[in-house]
Amino acid sequence: MACEFKATRRVEFSDTDMAGIVHYANFFRFMETAEHAFYRSLGFSVLLSQFDPPLGWPRVHAECDYVKPLRFEDLVEIHLLVAEKKSKALRYLFRFRKLNADPVEEVARGALTVVCVAHRPGGKMAAVAIPPLIANMIEVAPKESLL
Amino acid sequence: MACEFKATRRVEFSDTDMAGIVHYANFFRFMETAEHAFYRSLGFSVLLSQFDPPLGWPRVHAECDYVKPLRFEDLVEIHLLVAEKKSKALRYLFRFRKLNADPVEEVARGALTVVCVAHRPGGKMAAVAIPPLIANMIEVAPKESLL
Amino acid sequence: MACEFKATRRVEFSDTDMAGIVHYANFFRFMETAEHAFYRSLGFSVLLSQFDPPLGWPRVHAECDYVKPLRFEDLVEIHLLVAEKKSKALRYLFRFRKLNADPVEEVARGALTVVCVAHRPGGKMAAVAIPPLIANMIEVAPKESLL
Amino acid sequence: MACEFKATRRVEFSDTDMAGIVHYANFFRFMETAEHAFYRSLGFSVLLSQFDPPLGWPRVHAECDYVKPLRFEDLVEIHLLVAEKKSKALRYLFRFRKLNADPVEEVARGALTVVCVAHRPGGKMAAVAIPPLIANMIEVAPKESLL
Repeated sequence: MACEFKATRRVEFSDTDMAGIVHYANFFRFMETAEHAFYRSLGFSVLLSQFDPPLGWPRVHAECDYVKPLRFEDLVEIHLLVAEKKSKALRYLFRFRKLNADPVEEVARGALTVVCVAHRPGGKMAAVAIPPLIANMIEVAPKESLL
Repeated sequence: MACEFKATRRVEFSDTDMAGIVHYANFFRFMETAEHAFYRSLGFSVLLSQFDPPLGWPRVHAECDYVKPLRFEDLVEIHLLVAEKKSKALRYLFRFRKLNADPVEEVARGALTVVCVAHRPGGKMAAVAIPPLIANMIEVAPKESLL
Repeated sequence: MACEFKATRRVEFSDTDMAGIVHYANFFRFMETAEHAFYRSLGFSVLLSQFDPPLGWPRVHAECDYVKPLRFEDLVEIHLLVAEKKSKALRYLFRFRKLNADPVEEVARGALTVVCVAHRPGGKMAAVAIPPLIANMIEVAPKESLL
Repeated sequence: MACEFKATRRVEFSDTDMAGIVHYANFFRFMETAEHAFYRSLGFSVLLSQFDPPLGWPRVHAECDYVKPLRFEDLVEIHLLVAEKKSKALRYLFRFRKLNADPVEEVARGALTVVCVAHRPGGKMAAVAIPPLIANMIEVAPKESLL
């Protein structure tokens, strides 16, 4: 049972904008990178093609609070925490920490709600229960870690 | 006094991901595009370089709720509404509508909070009051349009 | 028969990088935007799903020469010219012009080679002849326009 | 004296497009990531702010040949080779190899020409000789490795 995951990323030149900082939309790309690495750490891919019908995890809500900027070549830790677990959905909390700051500081905090869906023939999607195989590997993080 | 703005955008191939839909992070790029076009429609640029010290509008909060996907070549209207106006901050609401659907349908709804800051020498930023020149041009949208 | 197309685009904040100019990789996104708008102007989409098997246009070569930078809110014309037409491939030339410069100036020049492929079952692709329906609409631009 | 560098990257979801493969413009982001990591491996940053006037490395030419697609979660090696060294410019060759293929296969090959420039007051840039400190650390790769 896993309730958290930490990914690390160095800020690339193409992540920045003319304000000299990471463009705010890119924090959402970073969240997803950590989310997908979390799944890989559990032994599966976000592409659940082994299921029939194939499953997917569309995002239904995303948000981010920005406290301090990230700059080129900063080393950022993206700390994923499982904040909520429902039969058909998961909510993740993300803490962004700048590792090359002394002391390490939290620069942003995000959240993502993903729903498990089945891809029906014809392109339709329907929310379905998270398969036990996956649900059994994921648990909600301790309350105090989510504050 | 302006309280809303509508921008239109055709979904580009590079906006999509392997799920065949607009990548969720790109909705935040679209919001910003509408925000900046809103400023241009009022006769100024988001780059307030005419002020001394120069002003900027960093984002402190961003969020989006996704209801239906957008696909390649869809024509999307990004409807910006001024949701809140404080002395140093503005909050925008965004409605994404797919114009090539019949009937036109809302596919997502976002929000953005931006703060007016002054760029001090040495790279420091400090929140400052929105200059009257700008504040006087922007007003909050009618309550019923924000529901 | 069409041999050229002009698309116009305003540089967005998210197109820029910390050098304050359009990130060099984004010129390739702009080229593609013009290419796809060219197809739409001829009455079809780059997604040739009406064919069986479905056809696609993967890129096999791309290049760009950068002369002057593009900045936020610049208005750029992307001028596509058909440079070569083979049975299975097309080569495009692109001229980037900054329309808000006086006089208008060319800031970059790119090229793209795309191949017509059929998507075989199982994900394989094979180069095929461009369907006459499409090939008959496209011709090479006059030599002097390609210098 | 260094003449090559290898960076490794896992393909992220946001790198892909609706064709299910890495969007062709992103290969240019990957090249730059390897280039900047090459500089860091030599002990400096692409941001040469320690020089007066500050130096930069704008790109004047970029190209890429695409042989096979890269897909989500592929592990790609970006092999940078110094192909040419002039007093004011460097040309790099890049080989993209898919490490999770058996056998490992080259999927694309790119090139980048960067020029050393000084940022003059007022935003003007002028090509200057690469500082000896840097030039002395970089040498052209053996001819046979560039074929």
